[in-house]
Amino acid sequence: MVTTDIFERCQSYTEARAAQAVGLYAYFTVFEGSDTTVARTSAGDVLMCGSNNYLGLTSDPRVRAAAQMAVEEFGSSRTGSRLLNGNTSLHEELERELADFLGMPSALLFPTGYQANLGVIASLLSRDDVVIIDREAHASVYDGCGLSPGRVRRFAHNDMEDLERRLANCPSDAGRLVVVDGVYSMAGDLCPLPETVRLCQKYGARLLVDDAHGLGVLAEGRGTSAHFGVTEQVDLITVTFSKSLASIGGAVLGPKHVIEYLRHHARSLIFSAAAPPASLAAAQAALRILRAEPWLCRQALENASFVHRELGALGYEPLPSETPIVCVPLDGVVPTLFTWHSLLERGVYVNAVIPPAASSRLRASFTAAHTPEQLKTAVAAFAAVRDLTPPDWSLEDWSPEDYVAEGAR
Amino acid sequence: MVTTDIFERCQSYTEARAAQAVGLYAYFTVFEGSDTTVARTSAGDVLMCGSNNYLGLTSDPRVRAAAQMAVEEFGSSRTGSRLLNGNTSLHEELERELADFLGMPSALLFPTGYQANLGVIASLLSRDDVVIIDREAHASVYDGCGLSPGRVRRFAHNDMEDLERRLANCPSDAGRLVVVDGVYSMAGDLCPLPETVRLCQKYGARLLVDDAHGLGVLAEGRGTSAHFGVTEQVDLITVTFSKSLASIGGAVLGPKHVIEYLRHHARSLIFSAAAPPASLAAAQAALRILRAEPWLCRQALENASFVHRELGALGYEPLPSETPIVCVPLDGVVPTLFTWHSLLERGVYVNAVIPPAASSRLRASFTAAHTPEQLKTAVAAFAAVRDLTPPDWSLEDWSPEDYVAEGAR
Repeated sequence: MVTTDIFERCQSYTEARAAQAVGLYAYFTVFEGSDTTVARTSAGDVLMCGSNNYLGLTSDPRVRAAAQMAVEEFGSSRTGSRLLNGNTSLHEELERELADFLGMPSALLFPTGYQANLGVIASLLSRDDVVIIDREAHASVYDGCGLSPGRVRRFAHNDMEDLERRLANCPSDAGRLVVVDGVYSMAGDLCPLPETVRLCQKYGARLLVDDAHGLGVLAEGRGTSAHFGVTEQVDLITVTFSKSLASIGGAVLGPKHVIEYLRHHARSLIFSAAAPPASLAAAQAALRILRAEPWLCRQALENASFVHRELGALGYEPLPSETPIVCVPLDGVVPTLFTWHSLLERGVYVNAVIPPAASSRLRASFTAAHTPEQLKTAVAAFAAVRDLTPPDWSLEDWSPEDYVAEGAR
Repeated sequence: MVTTDIFERCQSYTEARAAQAVGLYAYFTVFEGSDTTVARTSAGDVLMCGSNNYLGLTSDPRVRAAAQMAVEEFGSSRTGSRLLNGNTSLHEELERELADFLGMPSALLFPTGYQANLGVIASLLSRDDVVIIDREAHASVYDGCGLSPGRVRRFAHNDMEDLERRLANCPSDAGRLVVVDGVYSMAGDLCPLPETVRLCQKYGARLLVDDAHGLGVLAEGRGTSAHFGVTEQVDLITVTFSKSLASIGGAVLGPKHVIEYLRHHARSLIFSAAAPPASLAAAQAALRILRAEPWLCRQALENASFVHRELGALGYEPLPSETPIVCVPLDGVVPTLFTWHSLLERGVYVNAVIPPAASSRLRASFTAAHTPEQLKTAVAAFAAVRDLTPPDWSLEDWSPEDYVAEGAR
């Protein structure tokens, strides 16, 4: 019997090997060490300008000590869902502190930020409801929509007219949920929340803001909703601990009865292990430091703003940004990978973003921990690669036979 | 403008409050301390017979020290996806050790076991392909199917005739993926893998075994495929670190080219933060202990087997199990919650499972760390509650007004 083999697509996937064969593979680099701005690689130390470690707290002695003490007090894991045996006072304390800090009534933790968006979006809609998302919302928002029984509509990025059109086109009896990112991580721009809130109220829609990249950065860390002064008009906020909060995990914040509902219905919470003690304690310690030292947020923003300005002066055209993210669009995949590699050769690591994640660009991010000297080093590297000429072929020109010919693995 | 409010369903969700009002709420108990068999609650110490800590390694000094040292060496988090800045030698080492231990060519880590199933199942099928799952497969398998463009078919639990029917009914040119749990965690029974493998080969289907509860337990820890001697015929295995491996995280194991494909296509990997150093190091330490001390697996099985036998002698009818899981079916939701509560009053914590998770039952699990004395205590508690009479009302009889009347919160 001859059938289609689902593994065939894996055999014919060659792009990664093509990039490796020509030395332009930009992914899964191994980084060692705990320094937040200098990472060790097999090719030597690099200046890390491609993390989400916005406050530089992953190596803070207070954060580390909190994580280590939690392992002592609670063990290495709770080996179970919070629903059953996995819940601890650490989970509940962090929920209270997050809700208090963000000015929301209640919070619910998830083991990852990805699972927070999945659990919330998948649980709240029935098949007659409509979820309307920004086209550039995070992948976890898309995947949450994929698991929701509701109908999914997208509006053009940050285009409020398009959002209004979509809202107006909903069936009159359909429940509506609008989902946006507070900060769009592939450019660093913000959602125009005041106008979004107004439209949601006009059309009876609930609003969920994924503030993964706003928490710990904007409004002394309180995020995008606080930045625009609309926290009370935002229904739900999701956050992650794997950026400013120097950990991993996520949470949703919202009204008590909604949180209580999600606590008993979000499958990505109920059917997944509780966040481990070390991660909870690290996030809690980072949150407390952030509250006590809001200058960290300002420093991250100032550092990025400096680089943004300098890159503009060099002739680059970084995308507008009010965040620690500085993105430089480039003309195609090979030029992007080539420039990425040229920066790395000069000891500066940024993120190479290529389709389908977003259109080709270099994405750099700067943190409170970068020194003025390091920022100048980053700018100097961008200056040095400014006029290099990228190769004029494309990765699609390569076939599997080429690797054999080249002796590549 | 009057529209449907998607939060209305949250307002009308009252089951949890009803159970709380009558003192039979069995979920989100707060457990403190790091002892693997005795947990502290606000009502005193309880014997923990409801974790997945099968080898009792979450408090092992070697596991704890490894987690703490990793925080020292790598920081509290890598604050980014492995694709970009989050990858470390810890990730790659654990991948190699897992593949070596399980006898599979290659491995790929995910931040949670839930996300491992999502990423694998969602990435491998096109819309013309078919994924066929056991009806009692884990929720994460269902959610992976929800994100897959392929068609989803279910077969009756462990019913090989039904599986063959579903395979035979696939369109002849459709690619096929069969997904089963190695161990079904709501009963403790095993998938008949040899027959499953035979059918997959006959019908040209690939086979994915979710071995969350088999790893570290069966076949000296190598899991269900090794238990049946069919590892070489199983295409893909997913595992989690939040059971025997005393941590949190997950992995998929399979052929190198499939793993390489998933590395670049699994959205739950690419768009989620890298597993943190402490979790990786804990899982690695637990894996090394397990390899060196396979008697731990046997001890967990023997302990469960003792309780299984004793409960049978008491007149309970525990479901057949070849694992550390001992499930006792009970007649309805209130009797289950009542018996759960009666056991807890006697200092023994088990899991109360009610629909829709599965039909009503108590689920207990035993670990290598339980002492003979503790096992006897658990059996004695089951004996003491054997002839108590549960209340004869149902939770649906309660309305929100009742809580007010009762003065419950």
